[in-house]
Amino acid sequence: MQKDELLEFLSQNEIEFEYQGKDALALTKVADLEKATSQEIAFFNDPKRKEQLKSTQAGLVILKAEFSDLTVCNRLIVKNPYYVYALLAQKFNPLPSQKGIHPSAVVDGSVVVPASCYIGPNVVIESGVLLGEGCQISAGCYLGKNVTLGKNCYLGPNVVIMNDCVLGDEVILQAGCVIGGEGFGFAPQAGQWIRIPQIGRVIIGNHVSIGNNTTIDRGTLQDTVIEDDCIIDNLVHIAHNVKIGQGSAIAAQTGFAGSSQVGKQCIFAGQAGVVGHLKISDGVMVMAKAGVTHSLKQPGSYSGFPAIPTGEWQKNTVRAKNLQKMALQIKDLEQSIKELKNQLEEK
Amino acid sequence: MQKDELLEFLSQNEIEFEYQGKDALALTKVADLEKATSQEIAFFNDPKRKEQLKSTQAGLVILKAEFSDLTVCNRLIVKNPYYVYALLAQKFNPLPSQKGIHPSAVVDGSVVVPASCYIGPNVVIESGVLLGEGCQISAGCYLGKNVTLGKNCYLGPNVVIMNDCVLGDEVILQAGCVIGGEGFGFAPQAGQWIRIPQIGRVIIGNHVSIGNNTTIDRGTLQDTVIEDDCIIDNLVHIAHNVKIGQGSAIAAQTGFAGSSQVGKQCIFAGQAGVVGHLKISDGVMVMAKAGVTHSLKQPGSYSGFPAIPTGEWQKNTVRAKNLQKMALQIKDLEQSIKELKNQLEEK
Amino acid sequence: MQKDELLEFLSQNEIEFEYQGKDALALTKVADLEKATSQEIAFFNDPKRKEQLKSTQAGLVILKAEFSDLTVCNRLIVKNPYYVYALLAQKFNPLPSQKGIHPSAVVDGSVVVPASCYIGPNVVIESGVLLGEGCQISAGCYLGKNVTLGKNCYLGPNVVIMNDCVLGDEVILQAGCVIGGEGFGFAPQAGQWIRIPQIGRVIIGNHVSIGNNTTIDRGTLQDTVIEDDCIIDNLVHIAHNVKIGQGSAIAAQTGFAGSSQVGKQCIFAGQAGVVGHLKISDGVMVMAKAGVTHSLKQPGSYSGFPAIPTGEWQKNTVRAKNLQKMALQIKDLEQSIKELKNQLEEK
Repeated sequence: MQKDELLEFLSQNEIEFEYQGKDALALTKVADLEKATSQEIAFFNDPKRKEQLKSTQAGLVILKAEFSDLTVCNRLIVKNPYYVYALLAQKFNPLPSQKGIHPSAVVDGSVVVPASCYIGPNVVIESGVLLGEGCQISAGCYLGKNVTLGKNCYLGPNVVIMNDCVLGDEVILQAGCVIGGEGFGFAPQAGQWIRIPQIGRVIIGNHVSIGNNTTIDRGTLQDTVIEDDCIIDNLVHIAHNVKIGQGSAIAAQTGFAGSSQVGKQCIFAGQAGVVGHLKISDGVMVMAKAGVTHSLKQPGSYSGFPAIPTGEWQKNTVRAKNLQKMALQIKDLEQSIKELKNQLEEK
Repeated sequence: MQKDELLEFLSQNEIEFEYQGKDALALTKVADLEKATSQEIAFFNDPKRKEQLKSTQAGLVILKAEFSDLTVCNRLIVKNPYYVYALLAQKFNPLPSQKGIHPSAVVDGSVVVPASCYIGPNVVIESGVLLGEGCQISAGCYLGKNVTLGKNCYLGPNVVIMNDCVLGDEVILQAGCVIGGEGFGFAPQAGQWIRIPQIGRVIIGNHVSIGNNTTIDRGTLQDTVIEDDCIIDNLVHIAHNVKIGQGSAIAAQTGFAGSSQVGKQCIFAGQAGVVGHLKISDGVMVMAKAGVTHSLKQPGSYSGFPAIPTGEWQKNTVRAKNLQKMALQIKDLEQSIKELKNQLEEK
Repeated sequence: MQKDELLEFLSQNEIEFEYQGKDALALTKVADLEKATSQEIAFFNDPKRKEQLKSTQAGLVILKAEFSDLTVCNRLIVKNPYYVYALLAQKFNPLPSQKGIHPSAVVDGSVVVPASCYIGPNVVIESGVLLGEGCQISAGCYLGKNVTLGKNCYLGPNVVIMNDCVLGDEVILQAGCVIGGEGFGFAPQAGQWIRIPQIGRVIIGNHVSIGNNTTIDRGTLQDTVIEDDCIIDNLVHIAHNVKIGQGSAIAAQTGFAGSSQVGKQCIFAGQAGVVGHLKISDGVMVMAKAGVTHSLKQPGSYSGFPAIPTGEWQKNTVRAKNLQKMALQIKDLEQSIKELKNQLEEK
């Protein structure tokens, strides 16, 4: 990528920027600040890495104005360096865009596969499936009856999408995830569990990304919904009838029990959990391993089990570390009072 | 479904009921109370939804006698509405019952596939496998050597069953689950881990349901056993030599370490854990995120880590929220005693 | 296995031993101490099972010298019975060693498959893959472009290895695990998440074992590294750029957030978690469900959330169980002081 290409790319993406450096650029890929060579693009975001910025050999560093004096390399000064880096990394590392249907794929005769799509080896596509333009379906995937995919979806190997589920445009499903499996719906009767068929769907919006081996169950009667712009990590469990609001991010191994409603722009750190039938407001952040047991009506950060506002949790946690000390203080107090009583009686 | 069909179905299933309503019924499916139309069946179980019951347009509402006055719709009055609803939902939404062997399936020549079975695309069935009548094996499944399936088992796509494992009748394995993988058996020696081949099996009883991407490891020398009527949710881990007793229910992301023995009719909420070599009595309920670190000899509810009876845990949890307050109380007490001492000395 | 074969096997493996028993041995497999017959090998390691040792009918018992008087069976006396048992169990139960390429496999024309390898049904191998001698690739596996496998690797069914990842020799990947999936790398911008392509690899050393449905994400720019001799259980999540040091053991459902560096010979019990960008010293043991939130510079055992040294955690846990009692003690103290004050005033 030469300088004029870079400037055109930034302009196309409506990025405000200032460029400081040489006119001769020949950039071939993105790289880590510490190891980048004169043909590579790095970014600087973390003030703790100032020494690496000073010594970097990168061909271009993307950074904020306040740090631009720390390097003599070519500089691209922007407001959100990480974002601009992401765009350039995507430019240099596009998602696969193969075309054609592998002869080993088993595609029902009723399905129209656009010429812009790729259907990999051993993929199985059942009747009634609708595929948008440019979809990439990797080896071993299964698409059940009447599944709908929007444009430019990418499915990693061995992904399963069960019947009737709907994906928007530019949805990414990493390897091994299961969308629309039957959830945990059973009626107890005389020591047995009677299965409740799950006849809702999973509806996934646009620009959603779902991680490896994650499971999202179909709704019982209505639908499980993942709104636009959500990102979901590996080994996450989302139960039937859950709704995840626009732009929420869910880290690995987090779980949502049935019918929970999560607002927009929420963040869940790893191994968090949410019990069933709760409502979680927009803008909530749930910290690692926290367990939400009541509806959260206010945005903000929550920690612990049961989850409480993180500020309170931190105070309690500090105290909890001192429980041993508190117990000894109480013992001392009891002793002091005993002595006082004795002294009082003596007087 | 017309009224006479409904009555016959209830009679076949030995349901005690009272019907109140019109003779003309034309029911086509089950639906949610709030959205059901005059051709749909809904059920009412949750007193919080009384307003929905009053306004429902359902063609039939299944409910308890005490609520029957709240609606003018056709009513089916039974003792356990959720159970009767489940039976009707199954009637309207049966499991798949395809037949035949897809030409892309790889079935060892030694295996007899009953004509009532369905073997989907790209399924691999190794030598010595025994299949009961009516089994449905979805695309991409793998059945290792000498696996045995009872009657009417349903396997979702990409399920793996390793060699020698045994399933009873009417077992449901959801997509991507792995039955009989090698567990975590290694002998430490000079900074290395020496693999212990796991030569036991997984034995699964009748009417068991296992969730998406769940893993159940084979036994080391003896077997891992899941007894009849158990239901197991997504992303659950069951280690080697574990035994889960009849009718137990295990919610998502729960884990059992090796050789734990779980009694009958136990319930584990999501993200719970059980350490190895414990015995858990019949009728134990373990709450979400709880960690069981000692054998539990009494039925009842347990919470926290280490898990204790839920009643005790709740009291401690309330106190834990007040730790900051307790610390201040102690400080006040220390101050009071100081003052008392001074006053005493003055006298 | 006869006696001379046994002695030769021990000698080949450089085991110091003493044999006490008959010359006529005809051993056919390994078995549990309690159930072993006269043709089976058992081991004794657990002093709690002395009664089983006294009554065992095993054809050979592997045990330490101090217990050799407790049985009259043939005895193999060694320093580490579990290790010697593991070696013999492997001898009797070798990993599969099939050969050939199943006709349904889809192997890119550029790939040289050594005659000693097995490529199972429906396996997909993309261009540029390098396979060591003796690799066993089970049904339904996917190996992306330029993946490298060392010698004698075993992949269970439906394993996914994404492009460019590298495995050493004798690596075991259990069914359904995903190596090299894209991790959770996104830049926030105006309420959306912009994907950061993950262009590092996963590098796995020699003698590593990875469990069923576990996910190990590729590095962002550099690599995710699993060093030699690590063992990793089922449903574990290892995020991008993590490094796990030599010989570490990670139990089921544990998770590591991005860029954490774990030392050598560490042990993580089940459902543990480690937040991102931490350094964990060699020789650390993290107990079940613990959450590591700060770097751990000292070897030793850690528990709780946030994780602290296990000794401290245990003291606090005992106190935490008594919080209710402590609250009552404080109440009593307050009452006592009130009374003292009154008495003092009266004087």
